[in-house]
Amino acid sequence: MTHLNSRDDCLTMDARDPLAPLREHFDLPDGVIYLDGNSLGARPRAALARSQQVVAQEWGRDLIRSWNSAGWFDMPKRLGDRLAPLIGARAGEVVVTDTTSLNLFKALAAALAIQEGKDPARRTIVTERANFPTDIYMADGLTRWLDRGYRIRLVDTHDELAAAVDEDCAVLMLTHVNYRSGRQHDMGALSALAHARGALVIWDLAHSAGAVPLDLHGDGKDGGAASGADFAVGCTYKYLNGGPGAPAFIWVPQRHQAAFSHPLTGWWSHARPFAMDHGFAAADGIGRALCGTQPVLSLALVECGLDVFDNTDMAAIRAKSLALTDLFIALVETRCARHPLGLVTPRAHAERGSHVSFTHPHGYAVMAALIERGVIGDYREPEIMRFGFTPLYTRFSDVWDAVEVLRDILDNERFDKKMNIHARRDAVT
Amino acid sequence: MTHLNSRDDCLTMDARDPLAPLREHFDLPDGVIYLDGNSLGARPRAALARSQQVVAQEWGRDLIRSWNSAGWFDMPKRLGDRLAPLIGARAGEVVVTDTTSLNLFKALAAALAIQEGKDPARRTIVTERANFPTDIYMADGLTRWLDRGYRIRLVDTHDELAAAVDEDCAVLMLTHVNYRSGRQHDMGALSALAHARGALVIWDLAHSAGAVPLDLHGDGKDGGAASGADFAVGCTYKYLNGGPGAPAFIWVPQRHQAAFSHPLTGWWSHARPFAMDHGFAAADGIGRALCGTQPVLSLALVECGLDVFDNTDMAAIRAKSLALTDLFIALVETRCARHPLGLVTPRAHAERGSHVSFTHPHGYAVMAALIERGVIGDYREPEIMRFGFTPLYTRFSDVWDAVEVLRDILDNERFDKKMNIHARRDAVT
Repeated sequence: MTHLNSRDDCLTMDARDPLAPLREHFDLPDGVIYLDGNSLGARPRAALARSQQVVAQEWGRDLIRSWNSAGWFDMPKRLGDRLAPLIGARAGEVVVTDTTSLNLFKALAAALAIQEGKDPARRTIVTERANFPTDIYMADGLTRWLDRGYRIRLVDTHDELAAAVDEDCAVLMLTHVNYRSGRQHDMGALSALAHARGALVIWDLAHSAGAVPLDLHGDGKDGGAASGADFAVGCTYKYLNGGPGAPAFIWVPQRHQAAFSHPLTGWWSHARPFAMDHGFAAADGIGRALCGTQPVLSLALVECGLDVFDNTDMAAIRAKSLALTDLFIALVETRCARHPLGLVTPRAHAERGSHVSFTHPHGYAVMAALIERGVIGDYREPEIMRFGFTPLYTRFSDVWDAVEVLRDILDNERFDKKMNIHARRDAVT
Repeated sequence: MTHLNSRDDCLTMDARDPLAPLREHFDLPDGVIYLDGNSLGARPRAALARSQQVVAQEWGRDLIRSWNSAGWFDMPKRLGDRLAPLIGARAGEVVVTDTTSLNLFKALAAALAIQEGKDPARRTIVTERANFPTDIYMADGLTRWLDRGYRIRLVDTHDELAAAVDEDCAVLMLTHVNYRSGRQHDMGALSALAHARGALVIWDLAHSAGAVPLDLHGDGKDGGAASGADFAVGCTYKYLNGGPGAPAFIWVPQRHQAAFSHPLTGWWSHARPFAMDHGFAAADGIGRALCGTQPVLSLALVECGLDVFDNTDMAAIRAKSLALTDLFIALVETRCARHPLGLVTPRAHAERGSHVSFTHPHGYAVMAALIERGVIGDYREPEIMRFGFTPLYTRFSDVWDAVEVLRDILDNERFDKKMNIHARRDAVT
C-alpha cells in the first residue's frame, strides 16, 4: 500500500472496496474518525430499533411472557450459534453469556479438572506476562482458591513460552491477539506444541473474533488460523459491535462437553432449570457453560452486530484489515518520519491483528490531542497509542485523514510529558 | 380488608391510596392485570427514553468516551449507592453487578474465608431445601471445588434450622422471602441465633428488595427487618423494576470489606484497573466485589426503576403491600370458597412477603387460563399458583378484578390435570 501517495489514491481504494457499503450499517458521528473499535465497536444502526423493541414491546407489553415468546431464554445459545461460524466453531458449541473474565474462569476450571483426571501431577498454568491482566487475575483467583499447588508461570518471550510448556504444564492460556501490541500468535503451532507436551490450551479471542479469520475446528487451509484449541473465550463488544459491555462468549467443542465442569453452577446450567430440584445436574452440551439469568437487553443487541457479518466473510474482512493496517503503518512512517514514533505491532501479516500501536514519548498527550481533533484511538501504558481498524466501517480515506491529523499535531504542538498536557506552539499560554 | 365486599369498595381504596399516582410511572398494557412483578417487574416509562439515550447518544455518538463522560465505569457503585437506602445499607456498601448467583458465590467464598481465619473447624453451610435452587447449586459448586470437607446441610423446618446452626456451622445462607411460598423469615432473630453460635449469615434478598422494608444496619425499630446480616445479595429485575435480567446487587458492610476476598478477581475488582499490572491487588472498599466489564445498557435501566422509589418510602410500600395481599387472600377465600384452593403463604404479616401462593390440583391449567384472560401470575411446581403484588403499580380494583376472573374460570371451566389443558364447559370440543 506504500504506493498510495495521496488522499485521492485512498478515495480510489474506497471506491473499489467491496466492503465499503457495509459502513451504512453503522451509525458513526460526523467529524469523527473512529479508530477504537478494538475497544468498543461502533453502533449498528439496527441496534436502536431493536432496543426499542425489547424495551417497549417485549418487556413493556409482553412482560414475563417474553422469556418464551421473544426467545429470551434461548438467546445465549441462539446467539452462540450465530457467532460460531465467525470463529470456525459449530452449532451447539458456543454460548453468549456473562463476561470474558468469568468465561475464562469456567474454561480454566474445566481444563484443570480434565487434567487432574488424566495427568494429575501437572501444576503450572503457563501464560504471558503481557497477557490482558484480567486473564491472569482470574487464573490467580481460581488457583489460589483451589489451593492445590497450582502455579501461574508468566513468560516474557516466545522462546521462553515454548520452553515453559513442559511436563509440569497443565494448561497453556494465551490471548490470540495481544491487546497492547496487536501481535497475533500462531494459534495452530502453539496449540500443537502444547498438545505434544500433554497440556490443554485455552485461547482468549477478545481481539480476534470478528477481526481475523479463526478456524477452531480446521487445519487453517481456508485462511483461518489453524487452532487445535481446547477452549476459547472472547468478547462481543469489540470487533463484533455488540454494544458496551455486552455479554461475552465461550466455546466448548463437543469433544470436551461431557467433561466440562466448573464451580459456577447456577440454575441456567442445570439440566432442568424449572424443575427446581435442590440437587444440581449439569445440562447436556453447551448449556453447562451458563450460570445465572442474563441481561436480556444487552444480550439482544449482540445480534445486531452479528447480523452485519451476514453480508461478507472473514476472508474479505481480513484482506481489508491488512490493507488498512499496512497503509496506516506506511503513512505514519513516511509522513511523520521526523517524529519519535516507534512501531510496536509486527510488520509480518501473520503476526498482526487488526490494530496498530505506536509508542511516542508523549503518547498520552498526543492521543488526547488526536481525540480532541476527532481522531479517536486510545492509550495504554507505557507510552502506547493504539489505533484499531474495523474493516466493516473504516475507510482508506479515514486512514489518510487520521495520519494527516497526527502529522499536524506532531509538527505543530509541543508536549510536556510530566503534565500530560499539550498546547499549540502558537497558543498564548 | 375483609370488609371490602364490592368492586366499588376497592375503587374507594384506590382513590384514597397515596401510592396510586405512582402507577403513572409505569407502562402497563391495556387488558392486563399484572401480578408477576415478583418475577419480572413492569417497565418504568422512563426506561424507553433512557435506553434510546444510551444506544443513540452514549454508544452511537460518544462511543468509547462514554466510559468516562457518561459515567459507565462508575455505574455499579453509583447505582449501588442509589439502591442502598432501600435495603437499609450505607453508601459505599453496595454494587449492582453480575448475577445473583455469582454475587452469592462471592459472598459465600468470602464468608468461608473469614471463618477459616477465625474458626477453621466449621464445615457446614446451612440452608433450606426449599431455598431458591440456584443458591444451593452455587454453594455446591463452590464447596465441591474447594474440596476441603465442606458440607451443605439442607433443612426442612424452622425448628430443624435452629438446631442445624451448631458448632460445625460456618455459614447460614438463607433467602429472606421464599420464592415459592412467599414466607418471610425473621431476619434479625435468625441472624442473632447464627451469631450467638459463631456462624456468619448471608441473606438472599431477591424477593425482598423493593418489596419489604429492610434495615441491614438497624435494629428494626423503624419498621425494617432487623438484620444482623453479614452479607446480602439480591435482584434488581423483580420489585425494583430494573428490566429483564438486569444486573444483581451485593451488599458488603464496611466492617467486612477489608476481609472480603473471593476467587472471581477480574480487572474491575483491581485497585488500579488501568495500570494493567499483572499482579492482582484488590480494590479498597466495595469495588472488590466487582469482576469484569458490565452490560452497560441493561445496567443503565436499573436506575429508571430506582428513580420511582424517590416518590415514596418502604414503609408506605409495605403498608399497601399487606393491604393488597390481605385483600387478595380474603377475596379468594370468600369468593372462590367452594374450590380446592390451598393458601401456602403465611397469614401472619410478619411472615409474609409481597406475593401470595395458592395450590390447586390443576394449578398449571388454572394459571394458563388466567393468563389467557389477561391476569398474569405464574406457576411453580408442585401445583402452586403465584400472585405478586407490587404496590407501585397494583390497584385494589386489580385485586378484585383478578379474583373475579379466577372465580369465573374455576366456576365455569373444567380441567384435565393429565393433559394440562383447559376448556370451557360449554365449549364444543
